Parts: sequence; structure tokens; C-alpha cells
Amino acid sequence: MTGKRKIINDPVYGFITINHPLIFKIIAHPSYQRLRRIHQMALAYLVYPGAVHTRLHHSLGAYHLMCNALNELKDKGTLITAEEEVAAKAAILLHDIGHGPFSHALENKLMQGVHHESLSLAIMKQMNEELNGELSMAIDIFTNKYSKRFLHQLVSGQLDVDRMDYLTRDSFFTGVSEGVIGYDRILKMLVVHNDELMVEEKGIYSIEKFLVSRRLMYWQVYLHKTVMAAEKMMVQIIKRVRFLAQHHPNKLKTATAIDFFLFEFGGVIDQEVLNKFCILDDVDFSAAVKTWANNEDIILQTLCKRLLNRQLLKVHIQTMPFDESFIESKTIEAQQKLNISKEEAGYFVFTDEIVNTMYKPDEEQIKILFKNGAVKNISAIEDSLIQQTISAPIKKFYICTLD
Amino acid sequence: MTGKRKIINDPVYGFITINHPLIFKIIAHPSYQRLRRIHQMALAYLVYPGAVHTRLHHSLGAYHLMCNALNELKDKGTLITAEEEVAAKAAILLHDIGHGPFSHALENKLMQGVHHESLSLAIMKQMNEELNGELSMAIDIFTNKYSKRFLHQLVSGQLDVDRMDYLTRDSFFTGVSEGVIGYDRILKMLVVHNDELMVEEKGIYSIEKFLVSRRLMYWQVYLHKTVMAAEKMMVQIIKRVRFLAQHHPNKLKTATAIDFFLFEFGGVIDQEVLNKFCILDDVDFSAAVKTWANNEDIILQTLCKRLLNRQLLKVHIQTMPFDESFIESKTIEAQQKLNISKEEAGYFVFTDEIVNTMYKPDEEQIKILFKNGAVKNISAIEDSLIQQTISAPIKKFYICTLD
Amino acid sequence: MTGKRKIINDPVYGFITINHPLIFKIIAHPSYQRLRRIHQMALAYLVYPGAVHTRLHHSLGAYHLMCNALNELKDKGTLITAEEEVAAKAAILLHDIGHGPFSHALENKLMQGVHHESLSLAIMKQMNEELNGELSMAIDIFTNKYSKRFLHQLVSGQLDVDRMDYLTRDSFFTGVSEGVIGYDRILKMLVVHNDELMVEEKGIYSIEKFLVSRRLMYWQVYLHKTVMAAEKMMVQIIKRVRFLAQHHPNKLKTATAIDFFLFEFGGVIDQEVLNKFCILDDVDFSAAVKTWANNEDIILQTLCKRLLNRQLLKVHIQTMPFDESFIESKTIEAQQKLNISKEEAGYFVFTDEIVNTMYKPDEEQIKILFKNGAVKNISAIEDSLIQQTISAPIKKFYICTLD
Amino acid sequence: MTGKRKIINDPVYGFITINHPLIFKIIAHPSYQRLRRIHQMALAYLVYPGAVHTRLHHSLGAYHLMCNALNELKDKGTLITAEEEVAAKAAILLHDIGHGPFSHALENKLMQGVHHESLSLAIMKQMNEELNGELSMAIDIFTNKYSKRFLHQLVSGQLDVDRMDYLTRDSFFTGVSEGVIGYDRILKMLVVHNDELMVEEKGIYSIEKFLVSRRLMYWQVYLHKTVMAAEKMMVQIIKRVRFLAQHHPNKLKTATAIDFFLFEFGGVIDQEVLNKFCILDDVDFSAAVKTWANNEDIILQTLCKRLLNRQLLKVHIQTMPFDESFIESKTIEAQQKLNISKEEAGYFVFTDEIVNTMYKPDEEQIKILFKNGAVKNISAIEDSLIQQTISAPIKKFYICTLD
Repeated sequence: MTGKRKIINDPVYGFITINHPLIFKIIAHPSYQRLRRIHQMALAYLVYPGAVHTRLHHSLGAYHLMCNALNELKDKGTLITAEEEVAAKAAILLHDIGHGPFSHALENKLMQGVHHESLSLAIMKQMNEELNGELSMAIDIFTNKYSKRFLHQLVSGQLDVDRMDYLTRDSFFTGVSEGVIGYDRILKMLVVHNDELMVEEKGIYSIEKFLVSRRLMYWQVYLHKTVMAAEKMMVQIIKRVRFLAQHHPNKLKTATAIDFFLFEFGGVIDQEVLNKFCILDDVDFSAAVKTWANNEDIILQTLCKRLLNRQLLKVHIQTMPFDESFIESKTIEAQQKLNISKEEAGYFVFTDEIVNTMYKPDEEQIKILFKNGAVKNISAIEDSLIQQTISAPIKKFYICTLD
Repeated sequence: MTGKRKIINDPVYGFITINHPLIFKIIAHPSYQRLRRIHQMALAYLVYPGAVHTRLHHSLGAYHLMCNALNELKDKGTLITAEEEVAAKAAILLHDIGHGPFSHALENKLMQGVHHESLSLAIMKQMNEELNGELSMAIDIFTNKYSKRFLHQLVSGQLDVDRMDYLTRDSFFTGVSEGVIGYDRILKMLVVHNDELMVEEKGIYSIEKFLVSRRLMYWQVYLHKTVMAAEKMMVQIIKRVRFLAQHHPNKLKTATAIDFFLFEFGGVIDQEVLNKFCILDDVDFSAAVKTWANNEDIILQTLCKRLLNRQLLKVHIQTMPFDESFIESKTIEAQQKLNISKEEAGYFVFTDEIVNTMYKPDEEQIKILFKNGAVKNISAIEDSLIQQTISAPIKKFYICTLD
Repeated sequence: MTGKRKIINDPVYGFITINHPLIFKIIAHPSYQRLRRIHQMALAYLVYPGAVHTRLHHSLGAYHLMCNALNELKDKGTLITAEEEVAAKAAILLHDIGHGPFSHALENKLMQGVHHESLSLAIMKQMNEELNGELSMAIDIFTNKYSKRFLHQLVSGQLDVDRMDYLTRDSFFTGVSEGVIGYDRILKMLVVHNDELMVEEKGIYSIEKFLVSRRLMYWQVYLHKTVMAAEKMMVQIIKRVRFLAQHHPNKLKTATAIDFFLFEFGGVIDQEVLNKFCILDDVDFSAAVKTWANNEDIILQTLCKRLLNRQLLKVHIQTMPFDESFIESKTIEAQQKLNISKEEAGYFVFTDEIVNTMYKPDEEQIKILFKNGAVKNISAIEDSLIQQTISAPIKKFYICTLD
Repeated sequence: MTGKRKIINDPVYGFITINHPLIFKIIAHPSYQRLRRIHQMALAYLVYPGAVHTRLHHSLGAYHLMCNALNELKDKGTLITAEEEVAAKAAILLHDIGHGPFSHALENKLMQGVHHESLSLAIMKQMNEELNGELSMAIDIFTNKYSKRFLHQLVSGQLDVDRMDYLTRDSFFTGVSEGVIGYDRILKMLVVHNDELMVEEKGIYSIEKFLVSRRLMYWQVYLHKTVMAAEKMMVQIIKRVRFLAQHHPNKLKTATAIDFFLFEFGGVIDQEVLNKFCILDDVDFSAAVKTWANNEDIILQTLCKRLLNRQLLKVHIQTMPFDESFIESKTIEAQQKLNISKEEAGYFVFTDEIVNTMYKPDEEQIKILFKNGAVKNISAIEDSLIQQTISAPIKKFYICTLD
């Protein structure tokens, strides 16, 4: 007879089962519950109204895929102990615990120079103390210090359950059905060889499909120009707030947890900062934007109002850098329209570039295990779709303008 | 050649097409965009993590079903002019525009005595002025003053596209696949007879299925005991805030739009109140709860912290009222645990009842049009599942306790 | 470490895994492969073009659900040995092995007085000999002689995986999405109590949904009047062939396996008959109909041609028996149109009745296990949709006519 | 007010609507109904048990996509008359009417040198006479003689609704979800420019996805080695029957419509041959295989029995031709096992090659229409996945052996 057991409805996978005390403890923890208040896809919902799912939901989904992956591998004869199993599940549940408000969109903006993975680790360690070391093996797996490398690869690797879930979940909630990957078939094709995660030969086309779907999701969804415009506006808002705060910080206070990170945080992560971080979420930033929409500064006010009301900056994308003269004319238009200086117009008119690579043969090592025992990187396989020529980074240039 | 045209990805229906200037104007309006920040299912996401979809998404979905319904009816020969068509679409897009934060869960709590439908109407009228009367026919349809009654019935009736969308969408996002209705078949079975919306004879089983799914969604989702516990906690929070505000209102201010409705609103809806309402949303209430979680009042602080961290009240449901002695013992437990008075313990220990009826033959008139021209209420049909005996209201009693 | 392992793509469940030698042997057996050539839904594809799935596919699906059900029960602490597990899986794989051409539609017509379950048992026993007794436990489970009753109930009971699969699969392939049941949730709600299969309290609404979906599938699909007309035509064809064969059997020979059963079979099932049965399938009957479409007998020819070309008899259904005078007038019409006798017209004009009951409280015992340990039949539960009044059989009358 | 109207349930698209007299006539025609008895995917169901869908179902699905495509194009301003609309729909409904038993698998085998498209045309012309010329425009579109070229391209071109449906439907029924294409998005991206069908710029990734899915479907499904083995066995059966028929044709007669094509057809298609063809279908060949399974010729008997019981030849695939010595050793094995001559062993042991090309830039012209009015072949677009290097044909070699 087993102990407590709970099933959670998930529109993506049907049911997710929780049946281990440690998993219950993690999920019940306030730091984990905080992930309910962080959008998985930041502001993508401004283009894809269904994309309002949360980091918590994603990490539960990744946990579910981890359960399936471990079962498949065990079924194929890979030795995985009960302790390793729960550790791997704990590691994936916690892999995103260090995400801040609006995840990647604001990464490095609220806490400059701090990556979410290092925050994840710091929070895991703190939880591990509370849990008397029950998370030690999970942390070893997360940091790739555990002997069975493939467990780390399942958490963070080319075919980890993290990206399998986010591609699946993001395509599900956006309704971009073309982004769907065959996660269940990929899981069935996984195999451990020489302690490394590989893919069976007959899974090659599923992997191609996976990489092409990812490429499609990047260009069609994650780097969608309107989504990008919205997220850049968030960044400009923070930039403006920091600028204004040099003189009148009090006029910018929002009575939310974000104040500390904007006006007080000195760059060092200690216990107190971590505690403050663990109560920070999308609600704080959203509430702040609503407050700043009434700020007397026309730049800040305009950015916030337009973000709230989805009157976003216009974006153009092209494969060549934009002409200086074009940028200047757009800048002048913004100056005139809002009656602001050239410098201030820079909050509304700016260019940047985006780069995405379909598959990096040097870094990304998706290994195929052939029936005859040979192992090849997928990009080295004859007739593979994934080859050098396709692996060059694609760079695009964009400009945001007022209208 | 037609004019501007936009398609929106929807995970539920695939693509939603917008192709009329008035519909574009409505969607672009800040009051409509506000619905992005109101959860369709309030706190149901605490049980169903996928249920984070918004009022905006629901109203777009209902709009899509309206488009389909109108096409089906026209295809069957019902006369609907182009103007009526866009008016019906506008009416359904706006039907929920008067919803406040956390919709039904907080209905009547922030603005006591004010129903969301009257707010919807007030906001529509205001938008109608801005739009120089372009919404007049939509308002007539919404208020059932328009001559073709069936258009109102599509917006608000027993088989309106509102409930068809919310049942479909809510079951989709919760992952409660059993709640799925055959919306597409029901739409194809709709027919207008004597200016009234009816269902073709061969649609009877689809209607049965619709009513049974609705029943299932109520008991399994909308009235799920844990969801109810969370929503009752929100109500207790507001009650406590109002109580404390009698003495120290300033200590309860949150710097959000909710302050006005809690501490200043006098009960009369004028232009200014309406304007303030149109910037109020879930973010405000969520931010307020985060602020109050640090309030010195132990009752308020406890309620807020527990809500944030999903440490919800326990709920028991039964078909009989709870014994006074049981309630009292639970109250004493709460008193002791939190070191509070009996009266204060009432914030954590309380009982109430819930009632739901599968189908009310007297009020709900789903009419079936037989091939021979006869018209019958579905509950009057021989062998129908939906009969008198099944139509009695079901009442259940619940108690919330601290643990 | 396991041995051979195969995954089969299934559009309904994703992947079905085969991983036991006995299961491989059963599936590879010619008698099992024969099920590929028997439509699961007989002639329903004449109305629902997607409904061309096979008995083999259904039994694989039921096997898959059995795997899941056994896992759930074991996970809840029910003791099931590895041997029992494979026996239950074998039993469900073989439960339909005795189905003849066009299953239920021709049941009792080709082999009068022989039910498919007794044929299933006979074939199982024969296979058991070939397999040196490996199927003995499976046969005991199938015939309810095995001590753990719940295993039989999973194969054949009120909530067996057989009907869970056929309702799910038939609604999937017909596209009648309203017939979908929540099979995965029902499986998770199953529990063994006193050696009997029961449903947890919180599964009540899923069971209601299951029964309502079944009701819908019966009236909307299985008893669809056009499907019924087609299947009655098959029966009339056989009746005519038998009639004609009294005089000129050779003119009716088809060179298929069906000849034996129509012209030679004497009613006793011996080894030889069983062997002949095991090569009989839909192909034989379909080929025979194509041959008979050229028969000189106008009755037979007409029935066959019309069935082939989907020029089916017309059907009317009503809740009262049809007037004699109406039947007579339709008979006369047929006589005149085809220039045949009154008796012969009876092949095209005839009436009968159909009966279906949503739930029979006396026979069907879906038991609910309450949290407090109480056990109730679902029809005895307060507020249940499934009550006496709804449990009366529904009888309808139909008439087939030439046009 | 419209006339007769019928909806057909389709598991893939939900509902398919028929609402024009000509379409009703086509569907009711025996030559069209014959397509119910021809598997869309020949013997693929031996590997994918769900793949039992029919040519009729596919052509209905293609018709449905044609309806949607025409609506989209009209909505974008392309002029299409009501007559053209129904003609395009008729053309796609009939595009596969010339398929014989087991479609591609037996193409050129029963009627050597006759391609199914010329048969389709011949049958269309015959139906056109029966229908007093109502199909003339449809035939012009089918044969690309109609002035608006894009109508032909929708029926038969790089992005025609034929392949959109078969890729969608085949991946649906096989359960190979990875083959799913975004047909609805592709349809929304179609545009007519210079009377030619093109794709809007933002549809590029959908097209990439479409080509990659097609590639996956070819290698994983259509050219699946086990499917290929089964289909080659069918070809060997016909070869053997033809060989044996040189001496004893009567011993090979099957009493089915296939006899004519095997033993009498002289290569000229006249009215009579066409009539015989229009009653030929999978049933005939399947029944013949069952009959031949009892033939005294060991080669024929073995091939037929093994095909029936799914004891298929083994297949190996590799990128290099097979060694002569390997082939010879396998041949000898077969000779010994079946006690047959070397020549006869060639029915069981043989090699061949398969070639598939992802995209042929020279022949396949998927044109992209850019916002600035430029038109480019998709393989000529910068950063496109579909480039020269990827467009080389892939050739593989296979060998079939007895075990």
C-alpha cells in the first residue's frame, strides 16, 4: 500500500501524478508556489491570448515528462535507483525556481548580472537546509556533479525534459499547433549508452522534427516582433525608472516588492536578498506599471499606458541593419509627436539585432545510437536535415518606432 | 477586396478571424484590454493549474462562436443583415466588459449591490458615445430591445454562445475533458423558428450532453471545494479590511485602484466611478493581498499569507447542515491555534450552503423543433433525460476550518 | 532488464507497448490477425466514413487500458501478481476473438444460435492447447472462475476496459466527439474493495458522464437509422440466399469461406467448424455481396447492388408502432416498383423495434465506495442522475421501406 | 434560402458540409462509392493498425479543405464565381476516382502501363456524359485547361488540398502525430498573385514545417520497411499468378472482378473495361488472396498465407547496395527452407532501391509573395531551411528475405 497520492489535471498531458513525500513538500513550499505568479512566456499573451500559463505549470509538466522518461529508461534496462528517481524529479521541479518577474524578458534587468540559474541554485540550497539535506542529490544532479551524467542531461541538455515541456506547452497554449513536437515518441527513443543520453536510430526523424519545431517556435512565437516590442517596452520602463530615480526615488516607489530591487539592491546576493527575491513576482511589476502609468514623467507615463492598453511600439524586421537616416527620421517623428528631446525619443525609437541558430553542431551534441553500436552526432549523419549549412546562426535586425 | 483582416491563434478553436472595423475598435479599447487582466475562473487555477485564461480570451471565443452561429443560421435561410451581424458580434464581445477583479468570486464584494451586467451596460453606453452610436444596435440586442429576439438569445439565453464558450474553454484549460460539450454540433442544430432560437430534433442528445457536462463542471470544477475555500478566503480578506478600515484606513491603503472601491466608493455609479472601475483588475487585488500579507493584524496577515502560499482553509461538504457542536469545536481550535477571539475565529471557521440545479424547466426553455413542426421544451419530451425529477435543485452544505 | 519490446502507434492513446512473450504470441496468431479483417462497427462507416477501424485495433486498445488499469490498482495497493497481470491482458486481447463477419450485425445469422462469446471461449481453448496451457489463467479470468473477481470485472463488467475502449474508440473514429468518455479519469477512480471493482466517491460525475455518453452513442450512432437500414439489408440478403439455396445452391456459391456457413454448417461446433470459422471474415461476406449483385434473382440482386452503392432502404423511427395500413401501402409501392409479390416485398418493407436502457439498476451494479467506507449502487445515491425513473427501457419502432 | 444540406462527421475536421446538388450527385454515384472499398494507405495498416481509412474519406477531406481554401481566397479579394467554386470542389472530389485496388501499391500491376490519373479522367468524362456536361468545368480545372490556373493548382500542385489532406489524414489515422502539418494556417497564408497560388511571407515557417513533415511521413510511414515488405508481397503474388496463368489459368480464377484484369485485359481501355474497372476494389484482391492461399502452388500459397497472417518478409535497408554474396546466401536459405529453385526463391529474396527528395527546387515551385511584392521560390530565400543542399534525392537500398 502506497502513501499519499494526488492527481493534477493538466490539459497538455491529461493527469500528473504526485506520490512521493519530498515532491509534496517541494510543491507546497512558498518559493515554489510563487511560480504560479510568473508567466511562462512573459508578454507573449499580448499576441497569443492563450499564452498565460505559468512557470509552475511548466515545471509540473517537465516533472511529468521526467517521470515518463525515467520509466522508459528503466524499462529498457538502465539502472536507476528509487533515490535517484526522486532526486531527478526534484531537480526538474526546481530547475526554474530562480526565475524572476516576466522571466527572460526582464532577466538581468532587475538584478543586473545575476542569471536565473544561479538564483535557482541558491534557492535550492536554502530549501535543502530547511529539508535537512533531502535535496542534496537533486542539487548534485542539477549542477552535474552526480556520477550518472544522463540524469543531469535529462534536466539540462539537448533533449532535456525542460525544453520538451516548454515547446509542447508553449505551442499548446499559444495554439501554434505547428510547434508541436513528438515528445512521447522522443521519450520512447531515448537510451542510455556509456552513461550518456542518446537517441535510437529510428528516432532521427523525430529529432529533426523537434529541431524544426523549435526553429519555428523561435521565429514565429518567441521572437515574434510584437511580443518583442512589448518586452522591450518593459525594459525601457525599467531603464526610465532607474534614470528618474537618480533624482526623485520616492516619486517612483510602488509599495511592491520591486522597489527593493530597483532602488536598494547592491548586487550582492545574501540571505536577505534571497528572501526578498522569493516574494517577488509578475504581480509586483504589473502593479508597478499601473502605478507608473500615472507618473508625471511623460516618457514613463506613455510607456506604461501604452503597455497596459496594448498600444505597442511598431516593429520592423529585416536581414540588413537599418539606415541611419531612417532611424533619425523616426526619432524626429517621435520627438515631435511627444514633444521630447532626441535622447528621450530613444526610449521609443531604437534598433537591435536578434540571432537564432537551429542547431549548433559544436555545442549541441544530440547523439544517435545506431543498431550496430555506432554513435554519431545528428549533424554528422548522411542525409540528415541538420547539417553544417543549416547550422549557421541567423541574424535579423529590428527597429522599434512610435507608430 | 476586403479591408484589414487579422487572425488570432486560439488553442481552443484554431484561428479567430477579425475583419470588421468596429470589432477592431472594440478590441483596441483600453476597457476591453483590461479584460486581459481578469482571470476567467478567478482562483480555480489553485486546483487546476491550467485555468489561468482570461475574460478577454473568453469573450474572443464567444465572438468566434457567434460568427459561426450566424453563418449557420444564414445558411439555413434565416435573414440576418450585415449590420445585425456585426452588432451581435459586438454585443457578445462586450457582454463581460463589466466584470471586476476575480469576476464572480468577488462580485458584490467590492461594489456592494452592483451586478456586473449593469456595469457592462454602463460601459457599453460610454463606449457608444465615444464611437458615435456605432454600438447602438449592439446595446439593443444586449438589452433584448431589438426586434429579432433570437439575436439576444444568442448573446444571453439557454444556449447562448457565452456559455458554450465558457464550458468549452474552461474544460479545455482545466484539462477536465469530461466537461467538453459538442459546441460545433449544437451550433449546427440551431434553428430560428418564430423569431426564437430552437434546436432541431436530432440535436436532443447533444443538448442532454450539454446539460450533463454543465452539471459536471459545476460540481467538479466551479464548486470544487478547494476552489471555493480559496474564493471564500478572498471574501474574508475584504471583510477584514473593511472592518479594520473603520479605525485605521491608512494602514490598509495599497496604492492600487482597489483603495477607492474599498475606502471611498459610496454606492453611486457616476462617470468618475466608472472611469476608476475601468482601470481596476486582478493585478490590483493580487498586489493588495501581497501588501496586506505584511499587515500587523494577525487575522488579515494570516488570511493573505495563506492565500498567497496556497495554504488554504480545509473544506468539508455534506448533504446535511453541520452540527452546531462540530462548528463550535472547530472554532475553539482556531481560537487556540491563532490566539484570537471567537468572533475573529469566524474568519476561518464558517459554514454556508451551495445550490445548483441541472435544468430548471420553468425558467430554462430549451425548445426543440420537431420535423413535423411541433415545438416542445426539452424537459417535456418523452424519454428525455432532462425531466422533472432531475430538475430539483441540489443543495449541499460546507464548512471551512483552519485545518 | 526486459526482453523484446515493441510500441504500436495508436491515434487514440498515442503508443501501445507490448513487452511480454505471451502477448507477442497471441498477437502473431492467425486467429488474432483475422480480427484485422473484421470491422469494429460493421456498416456504420456508411454514415460515419471514419468508422472503418477493426476488431484487432479495438482489442489492442482494450489491452492498453487493461495495462493502465492494473498499474493504477497496483499503485493503490491492490495485490496483483505478474502472472495475473499477463493473464488479464491476454484475456482482454482475446475477448472478441469469436466475432464473425460484421460482428453484431450478422451475429446469429451465419451461425444460428451461436453466440460470439462461446466461440471466443472455444478458440481460446484451442489456442491454449497450442500454447501448452499458457492461457489457462486467462481463460479462468474470462469465464469468471478465477478467485480475484475484479480481474474478470475488468474484462467483462459494468466498467470493463472493453466498453471503455469501444466507446472511446468508436467516438474517436466516427468523429462523434460528444460520445467521448473520461476513460483516463475513470481508470484513476477505480478501486478494489472486497475483491470487487468499485469507483471512488469523487468519480461519481465521471460515471454519470460515461452512462450519458453511452446513451448518446447508442441513439446517435449504434442505432442510427441509416446504419440500421444497412445492417438489416445484410440480414435480408442472407435470408434471401438461404431461401434461394433450398432449390439452387450452386448458383449462390461464392468461392469464399462463407459458403460453408450458409450451405453446409449443421449447427454443431467441432474442431473442423472452428477451423473454418477462423478463416472467415468481412472480406468473404463483402466479396459474396459483390458476386450476388450479379445474381439473376431480382430480390437478391437488388439488395446487394443497393448495399454496395449505398442506395439504402429508407427508415422511419417513432415511439409508437406503425399502422398496418401504412405498412401495407409501402409494401404495395415496393411490389409495384420492383414487380414482385407481396411476400417478396417483405424483403424491402418491414418493421421492428429497438430497445435501449441507459442503466439497469438491478443488473448493472456500478458500486461507489465512499470515503467513510460505505458502498452504494450508483442508482441509489442521493441526487444521482442515474435513478429509477431514468432506468426504464426506451423502446422505439422503425420501418424500412424502399424509398 | 438554400436547398438540401447535409453534414458528415469527420474525426479530422469535425464536420464536412455538403450543400450543392452536383456534389450530392457525385457522392451518390456508384463509382464514387466504390472508393469506400479502397484503402487510402494500402497495407500500411499492418504496421499502423489505425490506417484503415479509405480513398472516399480522403477525397471528402480534400473537398472540405477546398471549401475552406476558396473561402479564404474570396475573403482576400480573389474573384471566384459560384460556378468555379462548385467546379473546383467537384474536381477535387473526383481527383482519385481512378484509383484501383490498394492504390499506389498495385499501381501499374493490374493494368500495366495505365496511370490512375488517366483513369480518373476517363471516369470523369463518363460521369460528365451521364450528368449532361455538369462536370465540364471541373474537368477543365483537373486537366489545367481552365483559365484561372490557381484553381488547378489547388487540385494538383505543390500546395494542393490533396496532399494537405492526405498528410493530415494519414498522420491522424496512423497516430504519427509528428507528421501533422498546419493545414489551417497554410490555408490562411495562401494568396493568388498573377493568377498563381502563392504563400504570404509570414507563412514561410509553415511551409518548412509542411515539407519536413512530408519528409518524415515518407521515411517513417509510407516507406516504412515493413509496409514496403507487405506491398512487395502483393506485387510478387500478382507476378506469380500471371506466371502460373500461362499454363493453368482456370486454377487461378477467383470469381471476383480481378480475374478480368489478370487474365483477359489486353491493354486498351474502352467503355467495357472502364465499366469493369468501376466495380473493382480492395475486396476483390483481398478475396483473391484468401482463395490463392489454398492454391497448390507452394510459392503462391506461401506468399498469400504469409500476407494474410502478417508473417511478412524481413526487410533490411541501408545506404549502400547489398553485396551479391549476401543476396546469394539469403537466396540459398530460402531455397532450402521451402525446397524450391533459385528462380523461385526470387519471389522471397530480392533487392531494390527507394528514392525520396524533400523538395525539388526545379520542379516544385512553392512561391512566396513578400510584402513588398517580390516573389521568390522558397528554396531561393535567404536562411531558408529548404535549400540546394537539402534538395538532393536520398536513395536507400533494401533487401527482402524470407526470415
